[in-house]
Amino acid sequence: MKIGILGCGSWGSAIANLLARIGHEVHIYTRNEKQYARIQSVGDNPGYLEDFTFDPSIQVHLSVEETIDGADGIVLAVPTGAVRSTMEAVARSGSKAPVINLAKGLEQGSHLRLSQVAKEILPDSPYIVLSGPSHAEEVAKFMPTTVLVCAEDEKYALWAQDLFTYESFRVYVQDDMIGVEIGGALKNIIALGAGLSDGLGYGDNAKAALMTRGLTEIQRLGIALGAKPITFQGLSGIGDLIVTCTSVHSRNWRFGNLVGKGTDPDAAIEKVGMVVEGYKTTKACYELSRELGIEMPITEKLYDVLYRGADPGQAVSDLMQRPNKHENEKIFLL
Amino acid sequence: MKIGILGCGSWGSAIANLLARIGHEVHIYTRNEKQYARIQSVGDNPGYLEDFTFDPSIQVHLSVEETIDGADGIVLAVPTGAVRSTMEAVARSGSKAPVINLAKGLEQGSHLRLSQVAKEILPDSPYIVLSGPSHAEEVAKFMPTTVLVCAEDEKYALWAQDLFTYESFRVYVQDDMIGVEIGGALKNIIALGAGLSDGLGYGDNAKAALMTRGLTEIQRLGIALGAKPITFQGLSGIGDLIVTCTSVHSRNWRFGNLVGKGTDPDAAIEKVGMVVEGYKTTKACYELSRELGIEMPITEKLYDVLYRGADPGQAVSDLMQRPNKHENEKIFLL
Repeated sequence: MKIGILGCGSWGSAIANLLARIGHEVHIYTRNEKQYARIQSVGDNPGYLEDFTFDPSIQVHLSVEETIDGADGIVLAVPTGAVRSTMEAVARSGSKAPVINLAKGLEQGSHLRLSQVAKEILPDSPYIVLSGPSHAEEVAKFMPTTVLVCAEDEKYALWAQDLFTYESFRVYVQDDMIGVEIGGALKNIIALGAGLSDGLGYGDNAKAALMTRGLTEIQRLGIALGAKPITFQGLSGIGDLIVTCTSVHSRNWRFGNLVGKGTDPDAAIEKVGMVVEGYKTTKACYELSRELGIEMPITEKLYDVLYRGADPGQAVSDLMQRPNKHENEKIFLL
Repeated sequence: MKIGILGCGSWGSAIANLLARIGHEVHIYTRNEKQYARIQSVGDNPGYLEDFTFDPSIQVHLSVEETIDGADGIVLAVPTGAVRSTMEAVARSGSKAPVINLAKGLEQGSHLRLSQVAKEILPDSPYIVLSGPSHAEEVAKFMPTTVLVCAEDEKYALWAQDLFTYESFRVYVQDDMIGVEIGGALKNIIALGAGLSDGLGYGDNAKAALMTRGLTEIQRLGIALGAKPITFQGLSGIGDLIVTCTSVHSRNWRFGNLVGKGTDPDAAIEKVGMVVEGYKTTKACYELSRELGIEMPITEKLYDVLYRGADPGQAVSDLMQRPNKHENEKIFLL
């Protein structure tokens, strides 16, 4: 099949090589002329993936239209903040091909899930989300990875399952779009908190407790938005949460870790050098939880640290000192 | 309060110092004369905890009866395999003080949960279980830790909450004894599998997928035994699973890691040097799942590796290659 990939960061590049290896005709878009020239000449992607070479069959383009011209499927591999404008570029091209989105986040300001943005911009394109524990660095090395795909119409999820399945890349089908999107977006907030905890010198016990409570508050918001509770126990919930909170590959963890060690948030973003989704998601999610009246203590404390200059040590200590209660009380109250 | 601790390994020692720091009168039992002499002279616990010194107020004994004489509470800090005989020693002493059990496992042969063993041996002693993500190494350093306590009669759980609560040690109350015990016991199996996966050179994506599926099968068995599904999302479920699967402190992970790297299971046990609960729990749980007709693919594959000489690489690869399906299918079928 002919696939156009929009976005040439680590995730887009890893997926490009996976699809090429499977045997698809892969086109990839970058807006960066230097990166374009480098891929055409050397074929690697420095700054994004180490020890990586693009499959020689992959064609790189500087134009969205060229990349997706005649494509059977379009992969969105851009950060959350670029999803709307990239979808608008797809809309201008007139393509109605299924869109598979890899970004995990909530739109700033509107707090929309990305499938809601798709419905606005690309109402006639089938929309699929791919999520789960899948660090690009490992996918690029064809290390075993298990993900899920979700579409409103299951036939497109099954189509995407066929498209991506490879011996090192297992694809399950899910049907809870809200749960998958909320789990994927909000785990970045908790990963940032896990990095903060590690950066402050707290140990594995504290981090595990934070992640456990983090899953609870993700689920609380998700259920309020209409998600199925069980989705949060799956690959796009706890699976992705675990990998993002405990792996050195995670940018959100690294960002939080730097802040925990005393680096200013703005300087920490610069140091990580790539988009830190959790930073913006913390803001969008905090605002959304306020609108909906959902208690999200970890998100709130992180918002205080990142946007109101609160002390990280005090924030984590406050989270530890919440009054003793029945551990499931909050879920039971839903 | 006067507390007798039976068992002087890493967990018993860490809890002893915690209770002493809180201000309780702590007595601890060891059956090992060399360890007894070492504690009396140097005051540390080599082979169990690094950089550790017993609180000077703690009294060590070579007799169970002396240790628990007049105690207001008895802490069981022995491996699962020694729980029955230790409870029998308590029964012989005539004490009816509340018993707080720290062991996590299923009894070999009978497949009983440890609260069921307590009901047989100590029918008149209130029984409390303490569980959650709590590596002894970190508790011993007073690093922040969050656990839960569970008792059939909640008043004893509240009593234990008071007993253990400290600024670095937060204690929640839970009421699902079956869920707490099954989560605590079975996470050691998955940790062993996580170590195996790491030892074989699989990455973080594969490990996260394994842990996600592991939680599902733990929950499946738990629900069949009468546990509440929500318990597995809490500290004694996913919390303990995370810490045991991802921390270098975990013996079960280390054991699995050695086996994944090609060490024979018997030699790996010797190398770890402390009790590897997951090794025996794999057998008990495999047999129990067979009795009950519950599908537990990870447990089954690990049983094949540990007890039937199956190849670890083939076992993990088989788990990865299971047919594609809806990711929650199995839970939905319950």
